[in-house]
Amino acid sequence: MLERFRVPPAEAVRVPYEALCQTVTEIFVACGVPSQEAAAGADVLATADLRGVESHGVSNSLRYYVSAFRAGDLNPRPCWTIDRETAGTATIDGDRGLGVLQGTAAMQLAIDKARRAGVGVVTMRNSGHLGAVGHFAMQAADQDMVGVCLTSTSPQVLPTFGAVPRFGTNPISFAAPAKREPVLFYDAATSTIATNKIGLARRVGAPLAPGWIADPAGTPVMAEGPVPEGEGVRMSGHQLLPLGSTREMGSHKGYGLALMVEVMTTMLAGSIPTMIDDVRPMAHHYFAAYDVAAFTDLDAFKETMDQMLQTLAATPPAPGHDRVIYPGLIEHETAIERRANGIPLHREVVAWFDSCTEELGLVRLERL
Amino acid sequence: MLERFRVPPAEAVRVPYEALCQTVTEIFVACGVPSQEAAAGADVLATADLRGVESHGVSNSLRYYVSAFRAGDLNPRPCWTIDRETAGTATIDGDRGLGVLQGTAAMQLAIDKARRAGVGVVTMRNSGHLGAVGHFAMQAADQDMVGVCLTSTSPQVLPTFGAVPRFGTNPISFAAPAKREPVLFYDAATSTIATNKIGLARRVGAPLAPGWIADPAGTPVMAEGPVPEGEGVRMSGHQLLPLGSTREMGSHKGYGLALMVEVMTTMLAGSIPTMIDDVRPMAHHYFAAYDVAAFTDLDAFKETMDQMLQTLAATPPAPGHDRVIYPGLIEHETAIERRANGIPLHREVVAWFDSCTEELGLVRLERL
Repeated sequence: MLERFRVPPAEAVRVPYEALCQTVTEIFVACGVPSQEAAAGADVLATADLRGVESHGVSNSLRYYVSAFRAGDLNPRPCWTIDRETAGTATIDGDRGLGVLQGTAAMQLAIDKARRAGVGVVTMRNSGHLGAVGHFAMQAADQDMVGVCLTSTSPQVLPTFGAVPRFGTNPISFAAPAKREPVLFYDAATSTIATNKIGLARRVGAPLAPGWIADPAGTPVMAEGPVPEGEGVRMSGHQLLPLGSTREMGSHKGYGLALMVEVMTTMLAGSIPTMIDDVRPMAHHYFAAYDVAAFTDLDAFKETMDQMLQTLAATPPAPGHDRVIYPGLIEHETAIERRANGIPLHREVVAWFDSCTEELGLVRLERL
Repeated sequence: MLERFRVPPAEAVRVPYEALCQTVTEIFVACGVPSQEAAAGADVLATADLRGVESHGVSNSLRYYVSAFRAGDLNPRPCWTIDRETAGTATIDGDRGLGVLQGTAAMQLAIDKARRAGVGVVTMRNSGHLGAVGHFAMQAADQDMVGVCLTSTSPQVLPTFGAVPRFGTNPISFAAPAKREPVLFYDAATSTIATNKIGLARRVGAPLAPGWIADPAGTPVMAEGPVPEGEGVRMSGHQLLPLGSTREMGSHKGYGLALMVEVMTTMLAGSIPTMIDDVRPMAHHYFAAYDVAAFTDLDAFKETMDQMLQTLAATPPAPGHDRVIYPGLIEHETAIERRANGIPLHREVVAWFDSCTEELGLVRLERL
C-alpha cells in the first residue's frame, strides 16, 4: 500500500482486530447470513485491514454488501450446486451468495482435491464480490500448498488502445509456504491500481499518479492529478488502465493478464463475460491449490523458500531506497503492529459502523 | 511486436516456412538430436517467426543452441525421468535437454493427465531454454483445452527498489480455443520487455523506450535512449525492469508475477532458484492444461469465446489508434501473410545459416 493511501493519523480511530471481527460477524448475521459463514467472511475483511490492505478491508466494501443483502441482490443463505466435477476440478453455481462468505469453502474443496490429484481447481459463477483474493491463496499456503485465487468483475478497465472498458480489475493472487520466513503472499489487480484505491484516494485526499487512469476518450493520463469528479470508486467518464499503462510500457501485458483471468474465472465457470452480458452482473472466481508434496519434498521446498525470501530481502537497494521487500513482508509486519496497537479506521468509517449497528440493534464497534 | 523491431525491408531476405523448418531440423539432427525431437523443435522456432515473434524465432536463439550442443552444455539425447507423479501432476528431470525440443512431450503429458483429472500440471527442471512458451499453450488449445506455460531462466530482471537482478524474464503464456475466431493466444515476459528484444533492437538499430531498463545503480531509465554498450542481449551493467517499470506505475506487480513464475517453475520442480544457485544454471518449466469439457460445455465455451473476441476487436479505439486487437490476432494475421510471402529474416541471420550449414555439410537454406 502506497503511503498516499494511509489514513492520516488525525482522522484515524484504532479498533482491536477481534472487536472488528465480532462486529462484522454480527452485521452479516443481522443480514441473514448463517453464523459460520458470517465469521469466515468477517475474517476475510478484518484480516485485510490487519495486513494494511485498507482497499479491501471493511472501509470500502461492507456497506455495499449490507445494501445488497437488504435489496435482495445477494442471497444470504445460498445453496451452491456443483455443475461438473472430476478428480481435480469442480464448477460451482454460487446461487447469488457473497464471495467473501463463500470463498473459504470453495478453496477448501480445491485443497481437498489437490490432496488426491496433486492439483485442485474450483471455479464459481453466480457469486458476489470475493474481497481480497489473496486471503484464499493464503488458506492454501497454511495447508502446505501453493494457492492461486483469481476473480473477475464488471468492466472498468480499458483494453490497450480502447476507449470502452472491457474488464474488471481482475486480480491475481498467490501464496506459498515457507519454513521460518513470513509467507510469500501476492495479491494485485491486473490494472494499474485496484478500483477501491479510487475510493480510498478520494477519502484521504490523495492525488492519482501518472499512468493510472485514462481520460473519457481513452487516452492515458500521464500526469499526476486529483481524482476526477464522481462518487466512491466511480469517476465520471474516466477509466482504469491495464498494468503497464501505455503500449510502449507494456499495457498489452496487463490487458492480456486481465483476459487470462477472465477466461479462468468466468468462462471456465461456464458463464458469460460481463463485457458481453452485464444485465445481471455477478462476479466469477477461480481457486487453485497445488499440493507441494505431490511435486517435491515439502521440507526441502520450505527450506528453499526461506533461502529465496532471504535472498530477495537482502538485495542491495537502488539509490533512494532503504531495502528491497518481497510480497507479503510489509503485510506481515503491519499485521504484527496492528495486532498490538489496533487497526486504524478512518473516523468516517467508524461513523458508518455506529449508524449501521444502531440501525440493526447491535452493540457499538469497540475502539481502543 | 512493436514496429521498432521489424527487420527493415532492405535488410530482409524472405524464406519459406517449410524450408526454414527443414533446415533447422537438419541442424538439430547434425547436433545429435533424434529426428522427431528435431522436427518438433524446428516447428517451435519457425512458428515463432511465422507469427512475427522474431524475438523468439531462429534469429536470436538457434546459434546459441548449436554452440551449447557442441560445447556439451546441453544433452542432445536426454532421457528424462519422472521424480514424482499423481493423477494430475508430474515432476520431470529433463536430463540437460533443450526445452525447445522437450516442451511438446511435456505439454502432451499435462494434456493427457487433464483428460482424466480435469487439470494436468507438469513441471520440469534441469532443462534448457524453452523458446516461445506460447507455442506449448497453443498445443493445449488445439486439443480443446486451456493451456498455460511458464518458464524461468537466469537473473537479469531487478526486483522493485533493487540494484541486483533476481529473476529471469519469467514469461507467462496462455491460450484458449475458439470456434471460428483466431485463437486467443498470450505470451509475454513479466519484465517490461523480453531479453531477446535487446538483441533485436541492437541488430535493427532501434532505441529503447522509457521504463524498459535500469541504469547500473538500479534506477529506472525513464527517457528513450540507445541500447547500452554490450554484445547480443547483454548490456554492460544495465538490467531489465519488471512490468510496471516504477513502484508508482506498478513494478511491484511485475515483480510479484515474476516471483510467482519462479515458484511454479523452479520450486515446484524441486529445484533451486538461480538467484540462490547459478553455478550451473538451467531453465525450469511449467506446463498446465485445463480440459474445458471437465468444467463446462465445450461447444458453449467456444461460442462464448468467439463472442468475447469479437467484442474486444469491436471496442471503439482511443484517439490516434485504428483498432483494438486481442492477444493472438496480429500473430494470426502475420502468419497468413508470411505463409504466402515467406518469412523475412535479417540478411545477417541468413549469413549465419549459410556458414552453419556449410560447416555442418548441409544443404543451404532456401530463399524465395
